[in-house]
Amino acid sequence: MENNEVQFDYRVKAVQNENRISRITAAEVETSIECATPPEFPHGIAGVWSPETFFLASIAGCYVNTYQALCDRFKMQPVSIECEASGTVALVEGRYRFTGVMLNPIITVSNYDDEAKAITIIEKAHKYCLISNSVNCPVSVSENVMVLV
Amino acid sequence: MENNEVQFDYRVKAVQNENRISRITAAEVETSIECATPPEFPHGIAGVWSPETFFLASIAGCYVNTYQALCDRFKMQPVSIECEASGTVALVEGRYRFTGVMLNPIITVSNYDDEAKAITIIEKAHKYCLISNSVNCPVSVSENVMVLV
Repeated sequence: MENNEVQFDYRVKAVQNENRISRITAAEVETSIECATPPEFPHGIAGVWSPETFFLASIAGCYVNTYQALCDRFKMQPVSIECEASGTVALVEGRYRFTGVMLNPIITVSNYDDEAKAITIIEKAHKYCLISNSVNCPVSVSENVMVLV
Repeated sequence: MENNEVQFDYRVKAVQNENRISRITAAEVETSIECATPPEFPHGIAGVWSPETFFLASIAGCYVNTYQALCDRFKMQPVSIECEASGTVALVEGRYRFTGVMLNPIITVSNYDDEAKAITIIEKAHKYCLISNSVNCPVSVSENVMVLV
């Protein structure tokens, strides 16, 4: 481990209410978010964010942030950066966990010079995505770069 | 791997806007949430959820859900279930990732009979927490059960 002096700390708090919905707050973040067990599980609630969807939001959001940071470094700005994340939860040795996540970034650029850079960054953003590097299931990424002509 | 037929799929989408904030939506979830790079990193934005705080929200929310599910099984209902999650991000071999997460559940019960069950469930919820089982950093848990007298 190098650069042990470079580290950042984060903190959140979840408080469950009487309807089995948790309100989650984070230090210095203005909005709170509701979280419940998803409807696939006993007493699950539909229409609300869940730990499972937060997990994927964390990965998709981090991929977009990392992609943007690499665009800054490569001095390239796409027209738009989007990323879908889909994930599968399964029982493994008696415990549920994510067994795989698929990232589908959709990068739109305005010319063919940027297209090559955009394709290069697809894989680099995957490699340096902080959250993808913090999970124990395989995370794969597809390549989807569109040129507006 | 057993029970391969038991699996659930989840999907989210992140779309970055011109202010470097992503709006994240999930299938069948009514509310969207905003996500940005946290202020510790270049071009980071304060006051908004980030992949780092979503990651912890995912773990804290899952711990609460799992704790509640085990309470149902043990036929015990606490007065309240809360869980703080704090995590550290550091550079490891040139890539940022979470290097540790600490869960601080705060369980309040109304009598001493429930106290013993509540303490037992602290560790079980940790073991069966779906998201804790999906990350590659150590997740530790403290024991904090209060009895209202």
